[in-house]
Amino acid sequence: MSKQCSQEEILRRHQGGKVAIQPLVEIKTIDDLRVFYTPGVAQVCHCIEKNPQAAREYTAIAKTVCIATNGSAVLGLGNIGPLAGLPVMEGKSLILHKMAGISCVPILLESDNAVKIIDTLAEISKSFGAIMIEDIKAPLCFEVEKGLQDRLSIPVFHDDQHGTAIVVLAALIKSLKLLKKDKMQVRIAVNGAGAAGMAICKTLLKYGFKHIVLCDTKGAIYSGRKEGMNPYKEEIAGLTNEDRQQGGLADIIKGKDIFIGVSAAGQVTGEMVRSMNPDPIVLALANPTPEIYPEEALAAGAAIASDGRTVNNCLVFPGLMLGALRSCAREVTFAMKIKAAETIAGLAPAKDILPDFMDLSVHQKVADAVTQAAKAA
Amino acid sequence: MSKQCSQEEILRRHQGGKVAIQPLVEIKTIDDLRVFYTPGVAQVCHCIEKNPQAAREYTAIAKTVCIATNGSAVLGLGNIGPLAGLPVMEGKSLILHKMAGISCVPILLESDNAVKIIDTLAEISKSFGAIMIEDIKAPLCFEVEKGLQDRLSIPVFHDDQHGTAIVVLAALIKSLKLLKKDKMQVRIAVNGAGAAGMAICKTLLKYGFKHIVLCDTKGAIYSGRKEGMNPYKEEIAGLTNEDRQQGGLADIIKGKDIFIGVSAAGQVTGEMVRSMNPDPIVLALANPTPEIYPEEALAAGAAIASDGRTVNNCLVFPGLMLGALRSCAREVTFAMKIKAAETIAGLAPAKDILPDFMDLSVHQKVADAVTQAAKAA
Repeated sequence: MSKQCSQEEILRRHQGGKVAIQPLVEIKTIDDLRVFYTPGVAQVCHCIEKNPQAAREYTAIAKTVCIATNGSAVLGLGNIGPLAGLPVMEGKSLILHKMAGISCVPILLESDNAVKIIDTLAEISKSFGAIMIEDIKAPLCFEVEKGLQDRLSIPVFHDDQHGTAIVVLAALIKSLKLLKKDKMQVRIAVNGAGAAGMAICKTLLKYGFKHIVLCDTKGAIYSGRKEGMNPYKEEIAGLTNEDRQQGGLADIIKGKDIFIGVSAAGQVTGEMVRSMNPDPIVLALANPTPEIYPEEALAAGAAIASDGRTVNNCLVFPGLMLGALRSCAREVTFAMKIKAAETIAGLAPAKDILPDFMDLSVHQKVADAVTQAAKAA
Repeated sequence: MSKQCSQEEILRRHQGGKVAIQPLVEIKTIDDLRVFYTPGVAQVCHCIEKNPQAAREYTAIAKTVCIATNGSAVLGLGNIGPLAGLPVMEGKSLILHKMAGISCVPILLESDNAVKIIDTLAEISKSFGAIMIEDIKAPLCFEVEKGLQDRLSIPVFHDDQHGTAIVVLAALIKSLKLLKKDKMQVRIAVNGAGAAGMAICKTLLKYGFKHIVLCDTKGAIYSGRKEGMNPYKEEIAGLTNEDRQQGGLADIIKGKDIFIGVSAAGQVTGEMVRSMNPDPIVLALANPTPEIYPEEALAAGAAIASDGRTVNNCLVFPGLMLGALRSCAREVTFAMKIKAAETIAGLAPAKDILPDFMDLSVHQKVADAVTQAAKAA
C-alpha cells in the first residue's frame, strides 16, 4: 500500500515541474561550442539536407515523442483544460524516461476541434519520432487519432484507448490461463463507453473473445438502441451483445465471467459480483477510486480481482513506444499491440496476472517483442 | 582559435542528438510514482484548475521556451528545411540550458505561410513560458513575430533580428566609448537587408544613432528606389539614408565610421576599409565566413574589427530570455533590449568591446538587468 502524502507535501514535490530539456553533451570550452553550434553544426545540417534519414542518427528525434492533450478528459477529473492537465503529461513524460529512456515533450492544445488539432500536430510532427495523444475526450479522440495517423508516417498512439486495452488483454490472457477458461466461451461485461471501453471491446473481439456487452450510463448498448447513441456506439452495438441484452449494469453483470470497469467509483457491489458466474474475474479500473475494491470483490467470491494500480497502462506504453521508435514503425499495428499484451502476460509471476511495472526489464522485453512484431510486418 | 575537427569527428559528437527531455525528480519506489503520477498528481491538477497561475509554480512552463523554425533561413545555409535545421535548434537549446538553465524545446514547422505558422504556434503556446522563432527567412519572420506577439501574452522573440541587433548595439556602445566617438555623429553602413540588417537599423535609430545607410545585393536602399523593394525595405528607406546615397557597397562604405556586415563572405576588401573615415569600426558578422577577416580589417587601418565569433547573439539570448521568463513579461520591450545591450557593454573587459560569452556570470547579470527593466515597465 502507498504511504499517504499530505496535499502540501505533494505540491511541494511537484514544485518547478517534473521534466525539462537538458543537455546530452557537455560544453566545457569554446571549442566544444564550435562543434555543437556554429560553425561545426553546419556540417550536420548539410548531411541531413542531403539525406533526411540522417536526422534519426544526428538529432534526438528518433527517441523523442510528443504527448499532446487539450485536457478534455484528464484522468477521472473530466474537462479541466490543457494547463491543469499538464502535471499528468509531465508525469507520463517522467515515466517514459524512467522506464524506457524516451524524451517525451508535453504539448498543450487549445482547441476542441478535430480538424484544428490534427492540422496543428501534423504541422509540428517533424519534430518527433512518434505522437501520443492523451486525455482527449471521446469521441474527439477517435477522430484525432485516425485523422492524424492517416496524414502521418510516424506512429500516432492514444494510450487511454490502446494502452488500457492492451493491459486488460494481458491481464485476461493470464487470468484465463490461471482459471483454465477459454476466451471463446467467457462472457464479459464492460462498463464505460468512453475511449478505453470502446478500445477494450474492439481489441478483445479482434483477439478472439466472442461474448461482450458494453454498458454506458444508460445501460447496455445494443443494436437498435435509440437513446444516447453516436456513430461509435452504433459500430460497437453491431459488433457486441449478440443477444441484444438490455438493462442496467446490475442486470447485465449477472451470469458473466468477467467484469471490466472503466467507468466511475462504486458502480459495482458485492451482490453484483455474487450474481456473476462461478470464479469471476473483476477488473475495476476506474481512476482514482475503483468500481469495487479488490478486497471487496474477492470477499464476494471473485477468483481474481484487481484495480488500476495493478492493471495499469504504465505496463504498456513505455515498452510499446520504445519498440515503435526503434523499429521506425509508421504506425502501431494490431500485431504490435497483441505482441505487447502476450509478452506482458508471459512476464507475470506464476500466480499473478501481471508483472510489476517498476521492474525495468519488463519494458525492455516489451520493446524487444514490439520491435520484432513491427519488423515482421 | 578553434581546434579544427574533421567532419567525421563532428558527426560523431552529434550522434543521438544534443538535448532531450529528462526527469527533474527521482522515481525510486512505487510511492514516488503515486505522488508524481496518479493518484497524487490529481491534487496538482485541481490546484491549477482553480488558479491557472499555479502552473508556473507546479509545472516546468515558467522555465520552458519553444524554439520554432521552418528552416527557411538557417545560419548562412539558406532554405534547407526544418529537419536539416534541427541540429542548430538543438545547439541553441543546449546553449540556453548551459548559460541560463532554460528548458528549450525545438519545434519544427512545415509551413512557409505566416497565418499557418502563427495559428500553429498560438495553438500550442500554453505549453511554454515564451516562444523564440528562429531561422525563418525575411520578410516572413517579421509577419510571424508581429502576428504571434499580437495574439499571445507571453514573449515572442526572434533572435536573428533582436539578438543580433542587441549584441551589435552593445559592441558599438563600448567601441564608441573606447574611441571617444558620438553616436549622433558617426556614419554607418550596414550590409544585408534580411532579418538582422533591418533589426540592427531600427534598433540603432531608436537608440539615437542618426546616420545609417542599409545596402542589399542591389546596393544602397534609398527612398524612391524602384528595384528589389518590399514594404519592409520601403519603411527602412524612409528612416535611413537621409542623403539618398546610391551605389554599391564599395561606394557607400566610403567616408563611413562604422561597417556592420550581416550579409555574405568576402564582401569587404582592405581597400574598402581604407576608404572609410579614420579609426573605423568593422563588425563583419557573416556566418560562417565574415565579410572580411578581423586581421585583414585591422591591417587596413580599422581601429576595431570583429567577426561573429566575438559579436555573437549567444551573449544576448540566454540572459534576455531568462529575464523575460523570471519577470513574467508579456513581451520583450525595447527597454528590456536596451538594458541587455548596455549591461553587456558594461561587462566587457577594459580594452575589449564585449565580454566572453562562456562566462556564465554575464548571462546572470543580463537576466537580472532585463528582469528589472521588465518590472519597471
